[in-house]
Amino acid sequence: MKGVLNKDQIAALGIAGGWTMGLPDFVRYGDLDTYNHVNNKVYHAWFENIRVLYVRSLGVDFEASMEIKPVVRSASIIFNAPMFQDEEYITLCRISRLGRTSFTIDYAVWVAGVLRVTGDSVMVMVNADASAAVPVPDNLREIMITHDGAKTE
Amino acid sequence: MKGVLNKDQIAALGIAGGWTMGLPDFVRYGDLDTYNHVNNKVYHAWFENIRVLYVRSLGVDFEASMEIKPVVRSASIIFNAPMFQDEEYITLCRISRLGRTSFTIDYAVWVAGVLRVTGDSVMVMVNADASAAVPVPDNLREIMITHDGAKTE
Amino acid sequence: MKGVLNKDQIAALGIAGGWTMGLPDFVRYGDLDTYNHVNNKVYHAWFENIRVLYVRSLGVDFEASMEIKPVVRSASIIFNAPMFQDEEYITLCRISRLGRTSFTIDYAVWVAGVLRVTGDSVMVMVNADASAAVPVPDNLREIMITHDGAKTE
Amino acid sequence: MKGVLNKDQIAALGIAGGWTMGLPDFVRYGDLDTYNHVNNKVYHAWFENIRVLYVRSLGVDFEASMEIKPVVRSASIIFNAPMFQDEEYITLCRISRLGRTSFTIDYAVWVAGVLRVTGDSVMVMVNADASAAVPVPDNLREIMITHDGAKTE
Repeated sequence: MKGVLNKDQIAALGIAGGWTMGLPDFVRYGDLDTYNHVNNKVYHAWFENIRVLYVRSLGVDFEASMEIKPVVRSASIIFNAPMFQDEEYITLCRISRLGRTSFTIDYAVWVAGVLRVTGDSVMVMVNADASAAVPVPDNLREIMITHDGAKTE
Repeated sequence: MKGVLNKDQIAALGIAGGWTMGLPDFVRYGDLDTYNHVNNKVYHAWFENIRVLYVRSLGVDFEASMEIKPVVRSASIIFNAPMFQDEEYITLCRISRLGRTSFTIDYAVWVAGVLRVTGDSVMVMVNADASAAVPVPDNLREIMITHDGAKTE
Repeated sequence: MKGVLNKDQIAALGIAGGWTMGLPDFVRYGDLDTYNHVNNKVYHAWFENIRVLYVRSLGVDFEASMEIKPVVRSASIIFNAPMFQDEEYITLCRISRLGRTSFTIDYAVWVAGVLRVTGDSVMVMVNADASAAVPVPDNLREIMITHDGAKTE
Repeated sequence: MKGVLNKDQIAALGIAGGWTMGLPDFVRYGDLDTYNHVNNKVYHAWFENIRVLYVRSLGVDFEASMEIKPVVRSASIIFNAPMFQDEEYITLCRISRLGRTSFTIDYAVWVAGVLRVTGDSVMVMVNADASAAVPVPDNLREIMITHDGAKTE
């Protein structure tokens, strides 16, 4: 996508942490709630959007009928500081942990050198009807380890 | 805002219609619904976002307590063709009609030369507690007529 | 669905207009925007939710792959008065107009005897890949005319 | 609010766990995503909606200008099983932990005896401009301990 940043472009901006995808944007009116700041739910939307972009960029198809696909098992988020209309930010992600059938994606919202919000989600690879966990395929393991620097267990 | 297009930049892209603000973006996962296309409600969000940006750019403050502020009285939308994940588009707006206490904003979603969705909203200027309509201030009338080419009644 | 009102139940509440489905609810925090009132987009969500319930209740399947399905061609909405947190309301709908390949659904948000917001959407019946309009099936025409009182053209 | 369940009503339904507020509802079309199941973000909306209702029921005012107000510091969520259109559910909450300036709210989505999704959020009491944490007022501590059974630290 136009505007999406890769690992090298993120590092060139002086953003530490080995993030492997970045999506620059600015806060819209529709992101705000009654406090005039970005609503908590909106960060989950930003994280979901970049997760789908990133996992697809690894060659994973999110079609519901796929034989192997990742699903979100759990998620957590920390709100360090609020965000306001017009603020420019970069949503960041990287795969930080790799298990046999699961992996963890870390997220952050970066504004002028500060991480306003951070989070992560644990993804589990499942079969077509999501009835069983399946091993992360070897080609994905390779990328997660070498490109993302994911820690194996 | 970074990336927001003005009237001249829009015209330079060959987009006809005298649009006075454009906001380029691409379709995110969160914009989709069960049909795998952009949900109808999302276009209203795009129109709202650019409306707030544009009306603020005219010097109008949207704070609830303002003595004079615009509120949406009605809106309409036409869905010409669906949109899908990753598609790049430009949301466009301009003020097309100017009455004594109201004005109409036109909207469109432009994708590679075609308007996928068009719409408009009728805005009414009201007093602080929204109990009465008030005339559009002269300085705004001037901009709407000369910059946006709004038709007066 | 539990709580969904039919035509007789709506009439028994003294709500005029021949509405054929009603969905009672109350305003949640997430419906509000920076003005502390229900955001304009939220009414579109309410209308969409009841439309899907109602059209499904007529036996129409919304699966993307269906041979005949309704799509939204256009929509309009009028905001008569704002709504606030905790307010109890009933979203209403009925099919008001029936053409050869299209029909119109009217919507309203009723609060204690007053319609705060009204709207409608023009639906077109299309074939599986939405490449052509197709006639509204006879069994649906029958219901729309006799149960909803839709005006034919 | 009509339909909101209190602690005794929840227990009377056989729902274990000491939940102190319950909000029954059913899945709407707008809750779904491309998988035809409830989107992950929607659970955060349900949790936010019941949190605001519950904390307000304790006498806490959420106005941005209040001298003491709770803000969300962090949140986590576990997705046990997906949810689908029309499913009836009850969103539940209770205050499970009480610190000096913070407290934890637990959430769950209950469907026919099973918790499909669980989560929690850590709330911090802050001063008017959110520049400093302040102690949870004694009258709230009392309710959290006696009514919610919150564990103190």
